[in-house]
Amino acid sequence: MIEDSDYDMWALIAQTRHILFKARKKELEEYKISPMKSAVLVKIQELADKATPTQIARVIVREPHSVSEILNRMEKDGLVERIKDPERKGRVRYTLTESGRKAYSQSVKRETIHAIISSLSAEDYRQLSTILKKLRDAGLHELTKRQYKFSDIP
Amino acid sequence: MIEDSDYDMWALIAQTRHILFKARKKELEEYKISPMKSAVLVKIQELADKATPTQIARVIVREPHSVSEILNRMEKDGLVERIKDPERKGRVRYTLTESGRKAYSQSVKRETIHAIISSLSAEDYRQLSTILKKLRDAGLHELTKRQYKFSDIP
Repeated sequence: MIEDSDYDMWALIAQTRHILFKARKKELEEYKISPMKSAVLVKIQELADKATPTQIARVIVREPHSVSEILNRMEKDGLVERIKDPERKGRVRYTLTESGRKAYSQSVKRETIHAIISSLSAEDYRQLSTILKKLRDAGLHELTKRQYKFSDIP
Repeated sequence: MIEDSDYDMWALIAQTRHILFKARKKELEEYKISPMKSAVLVKIQELADKATPTQIARVIVREPHSVSEILNRMEKDGLVERIKDPERKGRVRYTLTESGRKAYSQSVKRETIHAIISSLSAEDYRQLSTILKKLRDAGLHELTKRQYKFSDIP
């Protein structure tokens, strides 16, 4: 085995994130929704009468077609309702049904998120925030560099 | 929108991890493998003659069935070879093919990982490690608690 403390840290980041999201997923299962469906419910609520599939896809950083699939499933599950725009033909937007509003309220309690993040002291929180931003910026730098390298140079 | 600093931290963790893995993914695309396939190659190499699907799944924290799917695809791609255990019926283990060993050597260079993690000072590194372990343990605690709640109590 090669000694590699950079890789150990990388693995710890991946493992921690995996465990955190698994815990959140377990919580949401109680409300019969997935993390992605929870994100869609929150965005529909926030966008209000601007909750078109395109806008929802834009704010949750997903392809419009995959968001449409999720919206179709959520409509079948009775969580959202599709509304045709009377002013623009072919344009639809979504609202939450009563059952969708209930799932929304339950999911924004974010019990696991509070339980996990509150295990940090104020000092831990401040340090983690600073360090993650350093990593994020270094990651963005690598990404820009590599995308450059692979781009078609005329 | 509800003010929620715990959620902000959660989002920062998710965003940082997303950017880091996107950078690593870009690097691995050069060697025509995915991050998950790279992890599997490394684990097969480390586990040597103990590289059964169950052991590989255990060390990379994934469900055994999803690791089996990856192993099947990697076998088709000529990266790994399945070997039947002559001593235990039905038990299989994996080894790297020549092409798998080549992809392994290239991927363990981990250029993006070194570039990103080396942006941290020794003190940052120490702090991040301590904080992530706190979060991981809090996550595991939540997970245990919730899995208990949902189990069938006789």
